[in-house]
Amino acid sequence: MAKATLIAIGNEILIGRTLDTNTHWLAQNLNARGIEIAQILVIADQEEAIKNALDWGFTKSEIIISCGGLGGTIDDITRRTIADYFGTYLKTHEPTLRKIEKIYQERNRPFTEVAARISLVPEGCQVLPNEEGLAPGLLFTKENTHQCYFVLPGVPHEMKHLAQTHVFPYIEKHYDSHFFRSITLRTMGVTETYLATLLAPFEQKLLPSMQLAYNPSLSSLDIRFSISTLEEKELIQFNTLLEELKNILAPFLFGEGEATLEEVLGNLLIANASSISVAESCTGGALCAKIISVPGASRYIHGGIVAYANEQKINLLGVKPSTLQEFGAVSEQTAIEMAVGIREKMGTTIGLSTTGIAGPDGATPTKPVGTVWIGYADAYNTYAKQFIFENNRERVIQRSVANAMYIVIKQIKGQKN
Amino acid sequence: MAKATLIAIGNEILIGRTLDTNTHWLAQNLNARGIEIAQILVIADQEEAIKNALDWGFTKSEIIISCGGLGGTIDDITRRTIADYFGTYLKTHEPTLRKIEKIYQERNRPFTEVAARISLVPEGCQVLPNEEGLAPGLLFTKENTHQCYFVLPGVPHEMKHLAQTHVFPYIEKHYDSHFFRSITLRTMGVTETYLATLLAPFEQKLLPSMQLAYNPSLSSLDIRFSISTLEEKELIQFNTLLEELKNILAPFLFGEGEATLEEVLGNLLIANASSISVAESCTGGALCAKIISVPGASRYIHGGIVAYANEQKINLLGVKPSTLQEFGAVSEQTAIEMAVGIREKMGTTIGLSTTGIAGPDGATPTKPVGTVWIGYADAYNTYAKQFIFENNRERVIQRSVANAMYIVIKQIKGQKN
Repeated sequence: MAKATLIAIGNEILIGRTLDTNTHWLAQNLNARGIEIAQILVIADQEEAIKNALDWGFTKSEIIISCGGLGGTIDDITRRTIADYFGTYLKTHEPTLRKIEKIYQERNRPFTEVAARISLVPEGCQVLPNEEGLAPGLLFTKENTHQCYFVLPGVPHEMKHLAQTHVFPYIEKHYDSHFFRSITLRTMGVTETYLATLLAPFEQKLLPSMQLAYNPSLSSLDIRFSISTLEEKELIQFNTLLEELKNILAPFLFGEGEATLEEVLGNLLIANASSISVAESCTGGALCAKIISVPGASRYIHGGIVAYANEQKINLLGVKPSTLQEFGAVSEQTAIEMAVGIREKMGTTIGLSTTGIAGPDGATPTKPVGTVWIGYADAYNTYAKQFIFENNRERVIQRSVANAMYIVIKQIKGQKN
Repeated sequence: MAKATLIAIGNEILIGRTLDTNTHWLAQNLNARGIEIAQILVIADQEEAIKNALDWGFTKSEIIISCGGLGGTIDDITRRTIADYFGTYLKTHEPTLRKIEKIYQERNRPFTEVAARISLVPEGCQVLPNEEGLAPGLLFTKENTHQCYFVLPGVPHEMKHLAQTHVFPYIEKHYDSHFFRSITLRTMGVTETYLATLLAPFEQKLLPSMQLAYNPSLSSLDIRFSISTLEEKELIQFNTLLEELKNILAPFLFGEGEATLEEVLGNLLIANASSISVAESCTGGALCAKIISVPGASRYIHGGIVAYANEQKINLLGVKPSTLQEFGAVSEQTAIEMAVGIREKMGTTIGLSTTGIAGPDGATPTKPVGTVWIGYADAYNTYAKQFIFENNRERVIQRSVANAMYIVIKQIKGQKN
């Protein structure tokens, strides 16, 4: 199994300004091609750091991919260092220079020295045209050791474009894959410790070529089951074990692979020719935004109302003032009236609601921060379910969004909520 | 200036399942204390990888902090490897064991072997109590070299809790800081290349101890100006240059430091005793959610309506059917009617709206994916502004959200939109 080292170059990551998502995306996509990520290094835009990282990368892996450091601003020294590392020098890449000149001309902007610097590339490497940005990618190959080094820009969509058009095709062509399979089973409503105990006897049966990993997040607990082997017959065993694993996880399983809660929900709504609308208080629009984040969501979501103030709950959703007075805004009764209200207002099959205390303010002696009611309404059922999440505004909102979608998924599947 | 190496331990990061945000948060908080991050390493839960990373970390820095690998599941070997690295052995930490037993008892869950494994710690290290989770943190110190190693859990809120209660106080006490200052100036509506050219003469004046870095994101272009020096008099020069920098950036500047667009907006609304409501189409609730993400937002936002379907734009926002027919849903006229409609409906000082084509579907020959109109309405002004963003659903939504907030900020400040 070929190994890769990923390097993120950039002071802005080390000072905590930028969150590096590039290596995460590359790791996902290389793993899916049977390439193992040996390590990820985040380093400064400094000569010594870059050379050390390349040395270490070539010791531990066949493939190195770096992101970042290709801009034209003054703090960029990546290009020069890489040329030096491979014993070559920088020269202007004419097609890139002409392309940048043309773009600047079209936009009526003065051509600057900064822009010119972007077209400098090390002599002797392969230049990878960047159709989404200015700085091209670079490819160095070491024929004697069957090793390669891809230099990509740090802007995420440019990096992805170059990876898809150049890096992945090259790797698929030049590196043998093992038999590699990996499947992710996505669960909700269960803790990692509980699942670890439940799966302990199952784990005893795994071959050394198989791996089971737990990955909890705010919107799911994912179980990844994978195999990397040279023996085709082990794949058959893997498939048998996978079925067993799915049976054990069945009560908590909502999806497989990359399928998110919002995609699973969308597909179920389409399959049932159902539509949905949402009434939000504590989630503030995040639930509606999550459902709409799926391309084509207009087929099933009509919209939503964020009734953050009590007055709006009454005026826009038809919640009874007496309900708010007697039970409070964060209550089973209010959640139900909100769900019923939005369903009627928007004329959808399903109405879904959230009302809770996201914090830091708003707690009462009987309702701590994290108390959330999620309401559900369709033509036959109306109910609300209570949750107590941790005391953290962002997490309360995210967990509420995930659990609201999960309630609808279970309801449509005919499972108990 | 003391240096730190951050290590994220976890196969789930290397296989691209989990996005590592822990080292990003640590980097931010350590930089703010004048600690330089030498490197960030993401490694596998493997003996050799962990030992190599510790070796490299101690070569390059005084402080090492690792996150992850402290769970109790079968794939966790961090604890054993660390004990081995420091020439010691694992033994049960009685207070932790008793705490876990008590929690399991309270929750009526059977005490498992997995749970027991969490209370194993290397003999001789300092155990850092974890009040947000089960696994405690660990601290190893090397007195002869004035080096230290903190072992933290990977669950973000547990890691942050331990960092705040133990790591940062220890570092502040034991490591001398240089004179360190860092300020981030946040801009909108300008490109990195343009600013780099504009700031080139300014950059010529910087001392070697000063640094200027650019950090573009979907919601701002941040300029970070910092100094790390032993000379107090250089700080005076830094302050003079900082004023000059602010003057150059003034036309684009919306905030300083960690202030986000939504916080700046919130503070301006409070200062002006203004309220806001939003009518969303293409942003699907993300604008409302972003404004509400700020604690205390209920003081100025009343709520919003996501009118994803045209029918809802008519019924809930009072957009005229003739407007939709004549100009389309993605038009200046519709954006204005949406903003006016939500303002009246919710009785707020300001109404804000978004309507656009987020893609991948919905483009027309004259309106490509990425076309967005943002509408603004208050008692004296109503207008809409057009944007053409890139062809990417998520980025169109995020850029629309940021620009909508920026329009209100400029309007309140009396700047031209």
